Amino acid sequence: MLPVAVDAMGGDRAPGEIVAGAARAADELGVPVVLVGRPDAVGDPGGLELVAASEVIGMAEDPARSVRTKKDSSLVRAAELVRDGRASAMVSAGNTGATVASALLRMGRISGVARPAVATPIPVPGSHPTVLLDAGAMAECQPSWLVQFAQMGSVYSTVRYGIERPRVGLLSIGEEPSKGTAFVKETYDLLAAAPAIDFIGNVEGRDIMTTAVDVVVTDGFTGNVVLKTLEGALRTLVSSIGAVLVSPEAGEAGAHVLGLLAPLAAAMDPDTTGGAMLLGVDGVCIISHGSSSSAAIVNAVSVARDMVEKDLVGALAVAVAAR
Amino acid sequence: MLPVAVDAMGGDRAPGEIVAGAARAADELGVPVVLVGRPDAVGDPGGLELVAASEVIGMAEDPARSVRTKKDSSLVRAAELVRDGRASAMVSAGNTGATVASALLRMGRISGVARPAVATPIPVPGSHPTVLLDAGAMAECQPSWLVQFAQMGSVYSTVRYGIERPRVGLLSIGEEPSKGTAFVKETYDLLAAAPAIDFIGNVEGRDIMTTAVDVVVTDGFTGNVVLKTLEGALRTLVSSIGAVLVSPEAGEAGAHVLGLLAPLAAAMDPDTTGGAMLLGVDGVCIISHGSSSSAAIVNAVSVARDMVEKDLVGALAVAVAAR
Repeated sequence: MLPVAVDAMGGDRAPGEIVAGAARAADELGVPVVLVGRPDAVGDPGGLELVAASEVIGMAEDPARSVRTKKDSSLVRAAELVRDGRASAMVSAGNTGATVASALLRMGRISGVARPAVATPIPVPGSHPTVLLDAGAMAECQPSWLVQFAQMGSVYSTVRYGIERPRVGLLSIGEEPSKGTAFVKETYDLLAAAPAIDFIGNVEGRDIMTTAVDVVVTDGFTGNVVLKTLEGALRTLVSSIGAVLVSPEAGEAGAHVLGLLAPLAAAMDPDTTGGAMLLGVDGVCIISHGSSSSAAIVNAVSVARDMVEKDLVGALAVAVAAR
Repeated sequence: MLPVAVDAMGGDRAPGEIVAGAARAADELGVPVVLVGRPDAVGDPGGLELVAASEVIGMAEDPARSVRTKKDSSLVRAAELVRDGRASAMVSAGNTGATVASALLRMGRISGVARPAVATPIPVPGSHPTVLLDAGAMAECQPSWLVQFAQMGSVYSTVRYGIERPRVGLLSIGEEPSKGTAFVKETYDLLAAAPAIDFIGNVEGRDIMTTAVDVVVTDGFTGNVVLKTLEGALRTLVSSIGAVLVSPEAGEAGAHVLGLLAPLAAAMDPDTTGGAMLLGVDGVCIISHGSSSSAAIVNAVSVARDMVEKDLVGALAVAVAAR
């Protein structure tokens, strides 16, 4: 397969952890990887090919403006490698908005797709993740876009997690169709009439981390708020519980329990999920968490490889065209 | 003081747990309590006065319609007791929307308040809770309402938690003023220009359960989604961690750690926070969690007593009038 392009400059721990992860992915998974970034910053590329890009888009830069002005940035160049058939997929842990903009502007959209959406896997203990989208590509959406999000999210749940007929829920503030904003009610009616998806009606925030639903659709503002609320809650609880477990009162019992909780903690860690996927652009684009470690990059490259091999983009195109 | 009116029929565990909690509150706190409900359902009122109401508004009933048609419901009668000066406050664990509608229609609004808001305390380990509002009174809001939410939430944080100058954050999807929807950006500008609040700018979902902010304002749709997302995440984690701690592998170490984690679990339990407060109506109205136990009702009555004694409603009226 064509190599996976990894943005060496994107992420809080770039380039060190990113380059290390890319090298490990090539080594451990046997997936061809090409790095994109500033040669002076990357240093030793660990045996990988390095495509030079002289600019870097910072984590806090305005997405649209930075992509427009920084044409030789690692993000834009990575997207161009996919567009030009020199890479099969791109992975970045950098500025999410700029990643969306780079992919959208350079790869373009799948024919018929109104807007792309960030699909983020939300871990569900003991089961496959719930796919939440849009988790932040488009802060303001139109109801018809959410129908496509539902179609694309369903395809993704099938291709990535093997769910045959994913149950799609619309995020609202009550199960009844009468609950929510005018936007949500209009979207409800469109989803109820949409073919080729298994729409189960409104779901609430408390359903996301359960087995009650496989795909949750919402606008990018609400989805991003939900995602970051979950992150914050997990971080607060993990640190509070961790403090108790390592306290003198807990002693050896704490150490024993800490070991037993490790698999659960790993399952909840965004580093293990392989990152979010930008659905609707004409190529595989993986958006890793900003704090990605090398392990996160290994997982992201692994998911990228799977999605390329299973032709996710082709399946999305068929689903959207079939409407 | 005038008695606190407790809706005996509201909540998943009504009337049993509610009546038991009301009796305990009167007994343990010395707060006068009056029950409102169907005498045949309540049975022995545990020595408390019972105001008879022949109807019950169910948890899933349409709020506006049920309040309009069920004039002799326990919820509507409880609000009327406050309006008529026969009770100092009302507490209900029933249908949230119907509680909001009952309080709004019977007590009326504080002069100058455009819309009321549900203010929910979000626990922060080791610190005072963050006040989140609106957590569901108004699914669709106007930017100017959020300025009042900020003023009222600040007063509430001061009166209830003793925070001298609460820091107010606007919930968005990035710290920069340019982030978010058109609604959020317009609200940002109004908040930045508003007097008498300490506006610290946008905050994200991950800040809510931290000490970075004291009051988080948002529209009622987003606030309710956040609240239920947090509830779901906590429930999932508590049950996953609990399963590990009581497993054979954990053994006695699990039991030891379970005991050490009890204070944290209690701090995270909505039963201990005393419930949400409807701010902006002309009376104290406490909205307890639907699953409230008797302990939750004791806490709710305790908070109601405090807010009456500290004249929260008077302080809110002054703050809103001072704009």
